[in-house]
Amino acid sequence: MDFLSLLLMDFVKQLQSPTLGFLIGGMIIAALGSELVIPESICTIIVFMLLTKIGLTGGIAIRNSNLMDMVLPALFAIVVGVLVVFIARYTLAKLPKVRTVDAIATGGLFGAVSGSTMAAALTLLEEEKIPYEAWAGALYPFMDIPALVTAIVVANIYLNQKKRRVENEYPSKQPVAAGDYPDQQEYPRTRQEYLSQQQDPADNRVKIWPIIEESLRGPALSAMLLGLALGLFTQPESVYKSFYDPAFRGLLSILMLVMGMEAWSRIGELRKVAQWYVVYSVLAPFVHGLIAFGLGLIAHYTMGFSLGGVVVLAVIASSSSDISGPPTLRAGIPSANPSAYIGASTAVGTPVAIGLCIPFFIGLAQAIGG
Amino acid sequence: MDFLSLLLMDFVKQLQSPTLGFLIGGMIIAALGSELVIPESICTIIVFMLLTKIGLTGGIAIRNSNLMDMVLPALFAIVVGVLVVFIARYTLAKLPKVRTVDAIATGGLFGAVSGSTMAAALTLLEEEKIPYEAWAGALYPFMDIPALVTAIVVANIYLNQKKRRVENEYPSKQPVAAGDYPDQQEYPRTRQEYLSQQQDPADNRVKIWPIIEESLRGPALSAMLLGLALGLFTQPESVYKSFYDPAFRGLLSILMLVMGMEAWSRIGELRKVAQWYVVYSVLAPFVHGLIAFGLGLIAHYTMGFSLGGVVVLAVIASSSSDISGPPTLRAGIPSANPSAYIGASTAVGTPVAIGLCIPFFIGLAQAIGG
Amino acid sequence: MDFLSLLLMDFVKQLQSPTLGFLIGGMIIAALGSELVIPESICTIIVFMLLTKIGLTGGIAIRNSNLMDMVLPALFAIVVGVLVVFIARYTLAKLPKVRTVDAIATGGLFGAVSGSTMAAALTLLEEEKIPYEAWAGALYPFMDIPALVTAIVVANIYLNQKKRRVENEYPSKQPVAAGDYPDQQEYPRTRQEYLSQQQDPADNRVKIWPIIEESLRGPALSAMLLGLALGLFTQPESVYKSFYDPAFRGLLSILMLVMGMEAWSRIGELRKVAQWYVVYSVLAPFVHGLIAFGLGLIAHYTMGFSLGGVVVLAVIASSSSDISGPPTLRAGIPSANPSAYIGASTAVGTPVAIGLCIPFFIGLAQAIGG
Repeated sequence: MDFLSLLLMDFVKQLQSPTLGFLIGGMIIAALGSELVIPESICTIIVFMLLTKIGLTGGIAIRNSNLMDMVLPALFAIVVGVLVVFIARYTLAKLPKVRTVDAIATGGLFGAVSGSTMAAALTLLEEEKIPYEAWAGALYPFMDIPALVTAIVVANIYLNQKKRRVENEYPSKQPVAAGDYPDQQEYPRTRQEYLSQQQDPADNRVKIWPIIEESLRGPALSAMLLGLALGLFTQPESVYKSFYDPAFRGLLSILMLVMGMEAWSRIGELRKVAQWYVVYSVLAPFVHGLIAFGLGLIAHYTMGFSLGGVVVLAVIASSSSDISGPPTLRAGIPSANPSAYIGASTAVGTPVAIGLCIPFFIGLAQAIGG
Repeated sequence: MDFLSLLLMDFVKQLQSPTLGFLIGGMIIAALGSELVIPESICTIIVFMLLTKIGLTGGIAIRNSNLMDMVLPALFAIVVGVLVVFIARYTLAKLPKVRTVDAIATGGLFGAVSGSTMAAALTLLEEEKIPYEAWAGALYPFMDIPALVTAIVVANIYLNQKKRRVENEYPSKQPVAAGDYPDQQEYPRTRQEYLSQQQDPADNRVKIWPIIEESLRGPALSAMLLGLALGLFTQPESVYKSFYDPAFRGLLSILMLVMGMEAWSRIGELRKVAQWYVVYSVLAPFVHGLIAFGLGLIAHYTMGFSLGGVVVLAVIASSSSDISGPPTLRAGIPSANPSAYIGASTAVGTPVAIGLCIPFFIGLAQAIGG
Repeated sequence: MDFLSLLLMDFVKQLQSPTLGFLIGGMIIAALGSELVIPESICTIIVFMLLTKIGLTGGIAIRNSNLMDMVLPALFAIVVGVLVVFIARYTLAKLPKVRTVDAIATGGLFGAVSGSTMAAALTLLEEEKIPYEAWAGALYPFMDIPALVTAIVVANIYLNQKKRRVENEYPSKQPVAAGDYPDQQEYPRTRQEYLSQQQDPADNRVKIWPIIEESLRGPALSAMLLGLALGLFTQPESVYKSFYDPAFRGLLSILMLVMGMEAWSRIGELRKVAQWYVVYSVLAPFVHGLIAFGLGLIAHYTMGFSLGGVVVLAVIASSSSDISGPPTLRAGIPSANPSAYIGASTAVGTPVAIGLCIPFFIGLAQAIGG
């Protein structure tokens, strides 16, 4: 009872944080029909600066710390990234009116990481004065890339199996001419998509390296890895202290506002897909976060991974990708419906992760730790 | 004599302020044909940050202060906002070659408030070390909204009276076919405008709530009220001190530069309308400011409203809206000519308010106060 | 030997500077195909802020210092600006497959100054704690404008001589109809260009004042001279200390990244022109810098010009213009090929100047000075 009341009190207190305040404020003014617009170019540079800062922090930290400490948390990050996709494959995909490829793509997006959500978590941890490893932000790519790769691989395996089954059943017919399969929606809807699936009829294996490469090239991971490399190999302390670090909270507040407004405006997209996506988007951040929190606790008790670090791991598991994920998935699983995965992530998943999961996991850590 | 020399000395000293320096610098480089351009998206985010900061300041201040202190100044702000429109209606509108709707719209814009002008005043007060109530910036909407609402209501009453008078004189004719009315310019110039005026022939009352709603939804007031709400209901001190407050002066300096260049480039628009607009735009900021200054002095002597606060009240009365006002007026009084009210405000009213009225009212307060 | 090892050690150390790190990082991520994009509007405002800050620094410094100290360095800046064009005219232009007008235009761009390169040099001097005159940044226009003016004048004199020679040889033919001259590429390629060259057939003198005027109106020099004027005539210390100065390094780091990416993406343009441009672009920054360094040393020994100031003079000589130069040249020498001069400058000259020449001249100064 004491544990629950501690958790609740902490949760309420954190809603007063400006980071969450701007998120909720953005949703409210969007709901009230405000004409406030933050220009696209400003959002781009804010995301660049936040992720460069997180990368720099990580790089400087790794330079000054024992790399071995990172091994277990990084491994757990990979495990969670992969697991999240399979959870979606065997829960969301089985629900009525949910297309399997859409479910897999959604799982990939929820397994991938949102830099803004992570930035919000780091800021809230600092506001609550909970220490965490400075390299914790560098766990990002260890969860992000495996999730996207797994989603694309699983989706392609599924689509290939489907195709072969169909070919076995109707061997004389061209699939493109077929019109009455049980689940015809999953077939290529355009001639182009059809051709792209036909390109390598001999080997149906999905090439993994191009997916990893594309993830690394995305603007979010590029900025973060650049920061990481600069933190590792140069002496960026002066520019870090005079620029990237002090601007962090303020820029994050603007981005939270934008994400709140964006979440509200995307709510409508969810109406186009099965309502189960809403249920999934509310529950999944908690489920994924709790799995990561549990694994993080193992690292906490065995390797001395800080409780703040456990929260970071849990929050990046709760988060769903908003920048790098969608274009990678669109290219990798062209037959999945973007309204499903982007709507689920942006309209519900992200606000839940930031507004509910971050306070929840911080509260959980405080209840456990103190 | 001593009073005047004090006033003059102070005025000259303030022209050395960087805030005014950037404004004048912008006008000079525009006059010299500079190709310097500050991107639109940068101006948008600067305005957002300035008004959010003013809102946050106000919100934090209101949380920690006696709301009763605000009542009289807020009431005076409303009074001035309404009065300014009627001044334009019974002075500017009576001048030769000035169309009545244009005059009312111009009055509305000069009654409405410019966030940038207010920001400049707050900065100059700080540079001069004159104390003012931290919630003074929150007087903005109390003058802004009543002025816009009054202008739109007065304009519509005028247009309806006109129409009825015309219909009574020429009952059998369709107004749109008429070609020789004394003031035909005030008639709808497009079929669309004509239809929009015809929409509610039964009740000619203007609906006030939609005008208020539209004002509140504008980007300037949205940002400010968001800041106010966050200041009131969350604990934004960390992000305020690390980001919004230190960036304020610098962002303002860029905006002043843009406003100086903009003022110069809009000078040409004034040639398209009656030259009386120039006379009005030079005198009105002083007249409006002096009325507000006088009312503010009442609050100063009765309620202890600070002299710095009196200056803020006078300056927001001097200022004319540059962001939220024009679109609201364009929607509310579609038959008014934007060249008239935007030209008068941007090209003359705003530079006069910032470059002359702010130093004048600060000097006045200093001469009175000590 | 000791001198060389000192130089080398210092060179290697400076590659760890974040300023150079971001430049090299930008080249690397562009080479790896990163999709990171810094919006154009952000680059514009960064350049504005950097040059305004350099101008403000110079203006404040000049207000508080002896103008006589500037005379000799400014004179040397002019000399170097003019000399660089003639070097290109009598070296690059004589190389095989290099068109003479292209060579002159390239010389003009390499004589003109890059604000970002200068900003990088000032930052690195501060990191190395080498003192320099605060007005050193104000040497910029003294080299920039003479170089551009000289290039345009020299190119026009050359084109006129060429035309007259052709007219003397083939007096009856219209040049525009001629088809078999040895170097026909240098003839107007469009009717418009032809007409523009024909406009003043009586006097073939090039008007110098319009070129100077256009240089001054460019966004880079506008911002810098505005800052200079505000530093001289207003009291901008508050906004300088709270905004322009602290943001300098951080904004520069973003710009360095952009310049690195830009350099990589422009490499391809060099393939379209003679390969001698690459040789010139690598050597010229060193040659120009060494000439300026030598002249600077004269000022150092005779007038007490600081060694840091000598480095600034050398670096602005090494640098080639990236913002104001290209449009001025395009207008002034329309028959020159932009791929040649922009490619040479952006893809090779600028990275060499920032990444090699700045560390080299700082090392040289340290080896001489200590």
